[in-house]
Amino acid sequence: MDMVRAEIISVGTELLLGQITDTNATHICQRLAEAGVAVFYRQTVGDNQARVQEAFRNAWQRADLVLFTGGLGPTEDDLTKESVAAELGVPMVEHQASMRHLEAYFARRNRTLTPNQRRQAMLPEGADPIPNALGSAPGVLWNRDGRIIAMVPGVPREMRGMVDEAILPALRARGWIADEVIRSRVVRTIGVGEGALEDQIKDLLKTSNPTIAPLVHQGEVHLRVTGRGKPGEVDRLLDAGERLLRDRLGDVVYGLDTTTLEGAIGVLLAASGKTVAVAESCTGGLIGHRLTRIAGSSAYFLGGVVAYANDVKSDMLGVPKETLAAHGAVSSETAEAMARGVRERLGADYGLSVTGIAGPGGGTDEKPVGLVYLSLANGGGVRIVRQDYGTEPGREGIKYNASQAALNLLRRALLERKPS
Amino acid sequence: MDMVRAEIISVGTELLLGQITDTNATHICQRLAEAGVAVFYRQTVGDNQARVQEAFRNAWQRADLVLFTGGLGPTEDDLTKESVAAELGVPMVEHQASMRHLEAYFARRNRTLTPNQRRQAMLPEGADPIPNALGSAPGVLWNRDGRIIAMVPGVPREMRGMVDEAILPALRARGWIADEVIRSRVVRTIGVGEGALEDQIKDLLKTSNPTIAPLVHQGEVHLRVTGRGKPGEVDRLLDAGERLLRDRLGDVVYGLDTTTLEGAIGVLLAASGKTVAVAESCTGGLIGHRLTRIAGSSAYFLGGVVAYANDVKSDMLGVPKETLAAHGAVSSETAEAMARGVRERLGADYGLSVTGIAGPGGGTDEKPVGLVYLSLANGGGVRIVRQDYGTEPGREGIKYNASQAALNLLRRALLERKPS
Repeated sequence: MDMVRAEIISVGTELLLGQITDTNATHICQRLAEAGVAVFYRQTVGDNQARVQEAFRNAWQRADLVLFTGGLGPTEDDLTKESVAAELGVPMVEHQASMRHLEAYFARRNRTLTPNQRRQAMLPEGADPIPNALGSAPGVLWNRDGRIIAMVPGVPREMRGMVDEAILPALRARGWIADEVIRSRVVRTIGVGEGALEDQIKDLLKTSNPTIAPLVHQGEVHLRVTGRGKPGEVDRLLDAGERLLRDRLGDVVYGLDTTTLEGAIGVLLAASGKTVAVAESCTGGLIGHRLTRIAGSSAYFLGGVVAYANDVKSDMLGVPKETLAAHGAVSSETAEAMARGVRERLGADYGLSVTGIAGPGGGTDEKPVGLVYLSLANGGGVRIVRQDYGTEPGREGIKYNASQAALNLLRRALLERKPS
Repeated sequence: MDMVRAEIISVGTELLLGQITDTNATHICQRLAEAGVAVFYRQTVGDNQARVQEAFRNAWQRADLVLFTGGLGPTEDDLTKESVAAELGVPMVEHQASMRHLEAYFARRNRTLTPNQRRQAMLPEGADPIPNALGSAPGVLWNRDGRIIAMVPGVPREMRGMVDEAILPALRARGWIADEVIRSRVVRTIGVGEGALEDQIKDLLKTSNPTIAPLVHQGEVHLRVTGRGKPGEVDRLLDAGERLLRDRLGDVVYGLDTTTLEGAIGVLLAASGKTVAVAESCTGGLIGHRLTRIAGSSAYFLGGVVAYANDVKSDMLGVPKETLAAHGAVSSETAEAMARGVRERLGADYGLSVTGIAGPGGGTDEKPVGLVYLSLANGGGVRIVRQDYGTEPGREGIKYNASQAALNLLRRALLERKPS
């Protein structure tokens, strides 16, 4: 058939008051786009029957699938089902199996099943319930006039389960999922700014299938490769797009999709059998925190010293007081002594250090806010990198950018170890 | 006049593909709610003239203010202005001052002003531009038939500036901002779980003006106090609501609105003139990172030791090897020795330590994943807290919860110092 047109209606006064952001609509749109189903309109209405009816009336004139999220719960404000039934002139009837599920759900929790709660087992006549494995309110799947009306709860995890386990299968069963699907893969890069990166791949940003689009994140740039084609073919398009980027960008690419920088480093460190210790000044512990996000990081991360005060740099890391006096805490000399010191005192293969000025105070003409020195020591010697982030990223941004640069310094060193 | 009805139309195909979440609509809804302007409908459409026209047609039948976000840029896909002009049968005309602004904007950047870029200075006849201080595309403010059509860019910071500096003032000038406004204040609590907290304030959750609603966040519970009234009165309602909560909950309340736990502790530490050092095992540096988020934290935060490996606990913190052998790294004895050790070695007034099992591996029957010991040492002695988070929060959640408990342990100690 022609492209199926879906319309999403989000129901909830809290959305219209701006108390929550509608991430449900985003998720549903993603899943439908992947399935090749077109979404041309979304609507958002409050918990008001006349307005839910009006939104449905508009949608039902132009869509093959109208998908509601929200308004299925037990309170009197929840009236999505009732509104649609009223608009179509269909009575609400009790669904036996849903009522038994509800009774069991409440019995297990030693809670009373009030009349309001019982409303959750009522359905428009002719509609089928979607079982709710995670909560009390069932969803609704309603085949009507050759089209579909679907309703899922507003609770994100309940909504997600029903979309994947009931709604997409129903579309597939009807042959409504397009032969062509849209899929994306994210190629994550680190160490090259957005402008310079785009210059390197200017021609690739103009391709049509797959398309490649830059997404700027804090401290790194991602490239989204999007392909459109038959399910069996689209992955090959993504492979090709990824290969083009890797050939062009080399080690600037550190991972795919949900891989984090600390995750990529964890894989490299675990494979190398080497250990690392960190000496952090301006990052305050952020690098250690990021490395220990990774399960199993105790195999390669020994620990570190957060050397915020100068005395801690000298007492705990052995930075000579003369170095601090002559060059200051934010200097290549101090960074180097911190990296060497933490490596030696903790007995690690790699010592990684950061010292800088995160601001907003503490900057001088000579050493402005945003100036950061990073250093990596191993048995062979030491590397030092100077970064100047300026004031624009703010304190939190400077800390994060410094942690990115430090982790990337370690990553590059680990990559060089590998036989090329 | 009666309550003004606003409708928001978000324009952008990327929204309907689920590539971005519509946080603009959330923000605009918040600002309008604060101003007492009702939003009954939101619509989202892609970059398609027929569908933008249809969305506008529906909105214009039922709203006093139709506010578009998105579709004002220089590409051919950007056609919000053209669609509305076409729907109303009004020609597009060049706006002289906007064109001069655009020419200057491009000249400053040494960029060529292409014909597409020039479209940004075109307006529906009769509409006024909203200057864009942060980008190239002006917004639109159009008084028509006693109502208002407004358009702002999709770029969030440009959108926010125009809403605050042009659209809300225009509503105020018309007397469209309600006598009654809705305002909220968030009372932030730590250390009592959602259920127990609600039990303590069950009666307060039923008040009607102000209303009080719990919001569960990771590791803490916030209480949103919302009042409705005249601008001069509503703050008194919020004050009263806050007072009720403080009287009931006492020191469980740590701050208001955007105050973070580390920020509240920073204020207490700075006032006390005391210093703190941290010894972190399972949190990996997170506590140091959080404390150093606060500008000026170098006045009270000396640093710390991330003691992930057992050797680091003994070598860098002086935890006796016998303690580690007899009780294990995750034990009250080790936590105490870590807190005492870091206090002494870094010369701090307070030594704060955490040791635990973040998982997913490493748990035993006796010491399961989620078990965490916290300790705080000062000149007078030492406190130890045991927490059992279970596996459910996951590695990241256990780390965060442990950092919350540690910071709260320090906060309680600082509060006790104050004359009551």
